[in-house]
Amino acid sequence: MLTQTHAIQFSDPLPLQSGARIRDYTLMYETYGTLNAAGDNAVLICHALNASHHVAGINAQGELGWWDNMVGAGKPVDTNRFFVVGVNNLGSCFGSTGPMHNNPDTGKPYGADFPLITVEDWVDAQKRLMDALNIKQWAAVMGGSLGGMQALAWSVHYPNAVRNCVVIASTTKLSAQNIAFNDVARQAILNDPDFHGGHFYAHGVVPRQGLRVARMIGHITYLSDDDMAEKFGRDLRNSADYGFNYGVEFEIESYLRYQGDKFADYFDANTYLLTTKALDYYDAAREFGGDLSRALAATQARYLIASFSTDWRFSPECSRELVKALVKNKRAVTYAEIDAPHGHDAFLLSDARYHNVVKAYFDLIPTQADA
Amino acid sequence: MLTQTHAIQFSDPLPLQSGARIRDYTLMYETYGTLNAAGDNAVLICHALNASHHVAGINAQGELGWWDNMVGAGKPVDTNRFFVVGVNNLGSCFGSTGPMHNNPDTGKPYGADFPLITVEDWVDAQKRLMDALNIKQWAAVMGGSLGGMQALAWSVHYPNAVRNCVVIASTTKLSAQNIAFNDVARQAILNDPDFHGGHFYAHGVVPRQGLRVARMIGHITYLSDDDMAEKFGRDLRNSADYGFNYGVEFEIESYLRYQGDKFADYFDANTYLLTTKALDYYDAAREFGGDLSRALAATQARYLIASFSTDWRFSPECSRELVKALVKNKRAVTYAEIDAPHGHDAFLLSDARYHNVVKAYFDLIPTQADA
Repeated sequence: MLTQTHAIQFSDPLPLQSGARIRDYTLMYETYGTLNAAGDNAVLICHALNASHHVAGINAQGELGWWDNMVGAGKPVDTNRFFVVGVNNLGSCFGSTGPMHNNPDTGKPYGADFPLITVEDWVDAQKRLMDALNIKQWAAVMGGSLGGMQALAWSVHYPNAVRNCVVIASTTKLSAQNIAFNDVARQAILNDPDFHGGHFYAHGVVPRQGLRVARMIGHITYLSDDDMAEKFGRDLRNSADYGFNYGVEFEIESYLRYQGDKFADYFDANTYLLTTKALDYYDAAREFGGDLSRALAATQARYLIASFSTDWRFSPECSRELVKALVKNKRAVTYAEIDAPHGHDAFLLSDARYHNVVKAYFDLIPTQADA
Repeated sequence: MLTQTHAIQFSDPLPLQSGARIRDYTLMYETYGTLNAAGDNAVLICHALNASHHVAGINAQGELGWWDNMVGAGKPVDTNRFFVVGVNNLGSCFGSTGPMHNNPDTGKPYGADFPLITVEDWVDAQKRLMDALNIKQWAAVMGGSLGGMQALAWSVHYPNAVRNCVVIASTTKLSAQNIAFNDVARQAILNDPDFHGGHFYAHGVVPRQGLRVARMIGHITYLSDDDMAEKFGRDLRNSADYGFNYGVEFEIESYLRYQGDKFADYFDANTYLLTTKALDYYDAAREFGGDLSRALAATQARYLIASFSTDWRFSPECSRELVKALVKNKRAVTYAEIDAPHGHDAFLLSDARYHNVVKAYFDLIPTQADA
């Protein structure tokens, strides 16, 4: 399946939670499958930190979508039945308006002046795309990690617009430990001399070292301790003996540095900063004095919540808290706690038990068959 | 108790596992209590990453020893009965010969040329101090974390020299995840432009940003998730609302940045690098084809092993592995798994159950009373 990327422009300023506004912005999106005549088979996929609108299939650059194992013909989110929309969020570095684009007020790249965006802001921007696509109600909004926060926020802020809400490996709010990891990563970027206060584009440089460290920290937290032990253990890369220097020595060092280098090659530092800040800020119960049950009182969707046993970044405990608050509101909730060894990364991987749960759930979502 | 710091010089070159040698080196140490006539009441305390020879009491700079709650008159390691020795390791930045001192071969600071040191090298250097102090056998060698590795290495490499070996919150080898955290911290330092390949002393600068990030990462891993949630949660520092910028905002950010700044003020970057490398390299079973039981076959000491339930950096599982291998060798082992909320840091904190275990153990170590 060769996918086509679409760009849609919005001239109306989008008001943000910070009080700032963004005008003349573009959202990139892809669609898979066909919207039926009843318009009741549309599914929105929200992306996490470093992903994009390219969810499934192969794009013009030859890249496979980041959730291609989940979305496609005959896959858990079956594009033979569903019309799936992948959207790239504001502030991203994959095509939608972000820090590297020109600020219409100055004619220069936003850089660090790009406003901070919240999960709720992203959802508001996605709502405009929904309207533009003439979709009246999503059959489902779905996401993992930060994407799961967006799915949840959809069901809270646009309760009529979401029939099913699918929240995977996510949480209603980050823990202090999560915020701490994000802040250290941000500090590494902010204090990189090549960051230039966020206006590094003008200097023709990239804060590579900061991005590398940020990604390495992140990567450690996406894997489980056991998974790392299994994959890398204490194996040495090139030699039977220690080298007694600071070069690459253990396999795990080689792996992490490679991940860090790769990330620094393609990811934007300002996007990293604002995305981790959106993660830190999200707190579903915040407007309701910390009472999650109350925060969910207006919801109308049915829910599928899934978590992974070895995910210590967004632990099963976080998902169970959400499930409890939904049950307290008498919402229909399916909860799957998947025993999987791959930590937080599990939500992106192919796992039969996980995919069967999602498939079974989507198979039971009624849509009107076209004549 | 006002303590006095001693310096002892060794002119004989010390051969290191790397093949390098160190000559004309100094070790700083402190002693507490009195060596009895039989010479059988001496206890060696080995320090971890950022500590020193100043274990107990108040030194000339007015600083309290890092394990003052553990060592002193009437304390778990009772200086009314025991003669306690605290020693600063080679490569440290607290007085013993380290990277900031002159290399006798060049007359210039070692900097990054200071040889990498292993846990076993430290033990060899400590053995020379033992001989110089005319101590025939330690009543106990004791340490937490990296200090516990040294205590264990003493019992393996100098089995006759150790009657009791006390290993707290430690492990026989780091996991891949631990090595990963150490390597990211090292990368932050090595790539700080102020590091100058380790010769920053000559440039009159310090790789502060690298040290800050390294310490912040470390600090996250020393605390438990629950402890952080309890102490900081999602509390904001100065305002009821989000600031929508990258300044200090959450309490946990303020705490970590403070810890990072403080560390960068006093700790040496080269010491940090070589100490984390010593941690990564230590593997008690390495010379024995990975067979821990075999590695411990020559030991003669009795053991006290202690771990803490929420320590995810050096987990109870690591200690249990050590206990199992000792029991397989029919060694006398006391094992305490302390239910404590404070993560790895717990080994430095006052906790009645923990201190009672150590006290009971030391109270039962026989020493000859002086006439």
